[in-house]
Amino acid sequence: MPLLFERIKDIRNHLERLRCDEGKSIGFVPTMGYLHEGHKALIRESKVQNDVTVVSIYVNPTQFGPSEDYERYPRDLDRDMAICEELGVDVVFTPSDEEMYPEGFSTNVNVSCITEILEGEFRPGHFRGVATVVLKLLNIVQPDRAYFGEKDYQQLKVVQKMVKDLNLPIQIIPVETVREKDGLAFSSRNVYLSEEERDSALSIYKAFQLAQKMISEGKRQSEVLINAMEDLIRSHPHVTKIDYITITDPELSPVQEVREGDRILIALWVGGTRLIDNWKIKL
Amino acid sequence: MPLLFERIKDIRNHLERLRCDEGKSIGFVPTMGYLHEGHKALIRESKVQNDVTVVSIYVNPTQFGPSEDYERYPRDLDRDMAICEELGVDVVFTPSDEEMYPEGFSTNVNVSCITEILEGEFRPGHFRGVATVVLKLLNIVQPDRAYFGEKDYQQLKVVQKMVKDLNLPIQIIPVETVREKDGLAFSSRNVYLSEEERDSALSIYKAFQLAQKMISEGKRQSEVLINAMEDLIRSHPHVTKIDYITITDPELSPVQEVREGDRILIALWVGGTRLIDNWKIKL
Repeated sequence: MPLLFERIKDIRNHLERLRCDEGKSIGFVPTMGYLHEGHKALIRESKVQNDVTVVSIYVNPTQFGPSEDYERYPRDLDRDMAICEELGVDVVFTPSDEEMYPEGFSTNVNVSCITEILEGEFRPGHFRGVATVVLKLLNIVQPDRAYFGEKDYQQLKVVQKMVKDLNLPIQIIPVETVREKDGLAFSSRNVYLSEEERDSALSIYKAFQLAQKMISEGKRQSEVLINAMEDLIRSHPHVTKIDYITITDPELSPVQEVREGDRILIALWVGGTRLIDNWKIKL
Repeated sequence: MPLLFERIKDIRNHLERLRCDEGKSIGFVPTMGYLHEGHKALIRESKVQNDVTVVSIYVNPTQFGPSEDYERYPRDLDRDMAICEELGVDVVFTPSDEEMYPEGFSTNVNVSCITEILEGEFRPGHFRGVATVVLKLLNIVQPDRAYFGEKDYQQLKVVQKMVKDLNLPIQIIPVETVREKDGLAFSSRNVYLSEEERDSALSIYKAFQLAQKMISEGKRQSEVLINAMEDLIRSHPHVTKIDYITITDPELSPVQEVREGDRILIALWVGGTRLIDNWKIKL
């Protein structure tokens, strides 16, 4: 079984010994739990690159909006611990809210510009919550490397920017999105979907495939690609709202004409479930 | 001579070796240069408590308001280096603005509540600039201990709060204000004062002494003490504006009746020079 810590002081003491006295390298995978194949890919990558792998499981309240799904976000620590054991995780950190945000807590981190668009527009305050909790976790674990999935592409960019701007001595390692056989990106929130809704959720991946096919046929105009994707998505009955379909360069600036490495980013609602996904364009 | 580094990468490599390979403890004194007896006290304390002492000299533009004294803030690296050598400082870090804030820099740290009062009211954005640059410097140097003067009492509290809230593995060590023989607190900005202005600047220390005397005579009402201090200060011809005279508990909440350890905080202008100082109340 991995060692389980709930207190900052305890995990810090344990890792301090490994880091300094034994000279071990530390890989860190921050998660909100309910682990799936996406998380497993992060953990496996960390296992390859580091002596010690630490996984945090913490559903961070400050990155949820007041009307969002914080309360019903899926949680199952026993299942998560079994997965961590199976993958050979060394240390699991499951702090309480009181441990992370004791009374009087009043500091936050803001990464401007890239936090105001896309997810930031539809989830105001979300990235402030993410940046702050990630910074806290990075300071607690002090890893050599931390692993983030490309599924949450904008989050990855925000974390990379914060780490660079604040001179954190940590490497951020992006890991490719893991998809189910039919193309649906693994997400803890997929558990919310009924069978019919799941079918509509697949429209995201189908839209990526359509755009990629059009690109391979020589179409390069973002507008044309976006319109085609939107039509495809809207033909699915359970898609209740499209927050955005956009094409940007790797740094999240919208592009008019697509190039290798640009990203298609989509956020939409299927029934009462909000899903996001993105796709790296190949020419 | 202390080793002088201008690049983040270089100082980091150097300190990494001392910290990890040689197991040295690191003390850090962040300054804006033009070192005086106050800085020297910080450096001496660091020398006592650590194997290696690092001093940064950086006039941080982001903590100055647009109409403040960033441009004319006194700078003299040769003099500072001589002082550092004399005191046995091991490493001096003098980054450029480009090194600290490269193009596209967009992250900042906010400590709410205690940054909005007192200095925060009169210098909007000041503590955001301070917190952000201190966090960057702490991440670059990764000291075991960092030293801050009580002269900038609110700054000390902001840094302590940030370090606690963000779980930085660093001890913040406060060091008592150092005063000239006549009571004027050492400050790089004292160089702005003419001889006559310097005399009016002394009204701050005289006000502390007056309040302390009244307290020793049994007076405990903040309002009474503040009024007496204000009258004394206003009798000095070169005091052009009083920003605040207040009495707070150690956490900067105003008090009506003073107790041991409370603080008198004063900010005022002498001619074109803004001065701040504070006093720990003894009953």
